[in-house]
Amino acid sequence: MTLRDLGEKRLVREVLKPLLPAVVDGVGAGDDAAVVPFPAGARLVASSDKIPEDLLAVEFGLMSPTEQGRYLVAVSVSDIAAMGASPLGTLLTLALTDDYLVEDLRELVAGAVAAGREWGAPVLGGDTGSGSAVCMSSSSFGYITGDRTLTRSDAVPGDLIAVSGPLGGFGAALAYFAARIDGTAPKLSPEVSEGLRRCLVYPTPRVDLAPRLISGDWCHACMDITDGLGQSLRELSEASDIGFQISAESIPINPLALTVSDALNLDLYELVFGIGLDLELLVTIGSDGVDDARDCGVMAFGEVQVEKKIVIERNGTKTGVPGRGWEHFGGNVREYLSHRR
Amino acid sequence: MTLRDLGEKRLVREVLKPLLPAVVDGVGAGDDAAVVPFPAGARLVASSDKIPEDLLAVEFGLMSPTEQGRYLVAVSVSDIAAMGASPLGTLLTLALTDDYLVEDLRELVAGAVAAGREWGAPVLGGDTGSGSAVCMSSSSFGYITGDRTLTRSDAVPGDLIAVSGPLGGFGAALAYFAARIDGTAPKLSPEVSEGLRRCLVYPTPRVDLAPRLISGDWCHACMDITDGLGQSLRELSEASDIGFQISAESIPINPLALTVSDALNLDLYELVFGIGLDLELLVTIGSDGVDDARDCGVMAFGEVQVEKKIVIERNGTKTGVPGRGWEHFGGNVREYLSHRR
Repeated sequence: MTLRDLGEKRLVREVLKPLLPAVVDGVGAGDDAAVVPFPAGARLVASSDKIPEDLLAVEFGLMSPTEQGRYLVAVSVSDIAAMGASPLGTLLTLALTDDYLVEDLRELVAGAVAAGREWGAPVLGGDTGSGSAVCMSSSSFGYITGDRTLTRSDAVPGDLIAVSGPLGGFGAALAYFAARIDGTAPKLSPEVSEGLRRCLVYPTPRVDLAPRLISGDWCHACMDITDGLGQSLRELSEASDIGFQISAESIPINPLALTVSDALNLDLYELVFGIGLDLELLVTIGSDGVDDARDCGVMAFGEVQVEKKIVIERNGTKTGVPGRGWEHFGGNVREYLSHRR
Repeated sequence: MTLRDLGEKRLVREVLKPLLPAVVDGVGAGDDAAVVPFPAGARLVASSDKIPEDLLAVEFGLMSPTEQGRYLVAVSVSDIAAMGASPLGTLLTLALTDDYLVEDLRELVAGAVAAGREWGAPVLGGDTGSGSAVCMSSSSFGYITGDRTLTRSDAVPGDLIAVSGPLGGFGAALAYFAARIDGTAPKLSPEVSEGLRRCLVYPTPRVDLAPRLISGDWCHACMDITDGLGQSLRELSEASDIGFQISAESIPINPLALTVSDALNLDLYELVFGIGLDLELLVTIGSDGVDDARDCGVMAFGEVQVEKKIVIERNGTKTGVPGRGWEHFGGNVREYLSHRR
């Protein structure tokens, strides 16, 4: 059954409302707005994020509607975590074509609801309407207690630059599946292939880590990696007016990126620095915070420097950021990927 | 210049960030999320709303990008007001085609920023990306102090049903401009025509009224009118499990609706009950609140009854809700409008 067949009023009443959790004081989906208790003395943190209409994981047939719902929530919840905040809730805004399948929407919203619950960012409502193209976004809000906020502009020379987990999985997965679609990928084992699929489909916002990062004074700047490490470094450099001296060999790498780099004969660091939504947190650490960072699983791979450029040391030679940047307007991911081959 | 020419990074840096206000603690557009102070002891209210891709006012050439930006903010801020809450801020989420003009976007965001400031809901950021169709939504958040919330489910039999301002302007404007495009509209004076244009283009969220409605106990249920009076009554009836006995002659009517009804030979009450985003608040009032309501400019036009149906008394005869309901999926506003003629 399509949305045109069901109609908006029945969609809300029969499909959406039953999926959404009841909120504490009984106001949520179906009323004009959601109402949630807010911690006393805390500040409000809010972010909205759109996911691409032509998500490659969907185009490649790798992502179910349930997984897409999870992904939709992940992107905005990750922004909340990147500020050092704790999430409180999420709204979904969906423009859907008239021929969109009701069953797909049900699964998508169920996936979003389950993910929101898991991350402490329950889906509380939103808006659904028709469009000539599918357009999905989520808005998440959360809170910060205390005076600190983790911003992009607080990196200072002398800090270490570090990341909360291994990188390159998303970029490697994109490269592998694009090559597979084109018929140019070597066969990888089902375990590796499924591992790569999970990198693409299951990025996880680091809501677990955010409160630990904000609780000490050692974590200075912070952002989540949504457009690849290279782009994130450029944005941090821009916002804090600093540069980086990076040791490529110290960057924690997802082993699957090594596998793909070998199997497809691609430069490993183009996979790591290029397009990729790993959702790990990129942070800078004061010199007193090295042990605390290590306790959090945050791994340093370079230093913040005064000079506003990004220098990568690799096999003893210095280079700039490898690979091309990614441009959303007029960009084409598959063309972008094919340039690497 | 188009967005494809400018690119996303320059768009954010050169166009969007300079337009957005700096927030209190220096975190806003350009970082991962916006951070704003939140009143101690208050609850959080949040809503997101999508505006139609094929907004008739734009299609008819009646709405500038600046006005569209205002409209975009109005719809979600109105949801905040409808809960009796005070707004705090707004995020914009924009999917734009590659050929969208940078100048139009600049005006649209400037219009949104000005409107958000006027209504105490400053635009604090959001997300902009590419899409094969334009898709615009806003998310607003606000707060409620005290224990009360104005919901759709608190109407009780014996309440009066009332509205915060005259209705029918939006519906009349739609009917008039649709007829003008089709060449079937009589000529109206420039003043009337401009008045109608303003009904369509400048709906205003009742943020002024919300704190007064929530401060007493006399206002029971509340919602904003975004799909016409008929649809709003149906939704209130559904949410509160009650019905209405309405005196058509007591409904406050925008004089422009009378003008259009006469000039186009349309049933006045089809204009008032049918499709229309007037953003006035539809409320129910306890019997002790009649004077308070009048002081707020809230005008009663009927009663809440136990029996779950909507009865309209008109010229001494009883009818149901005049006109057809409006369906978003598979619906076509111009076809809808032409059925009335």
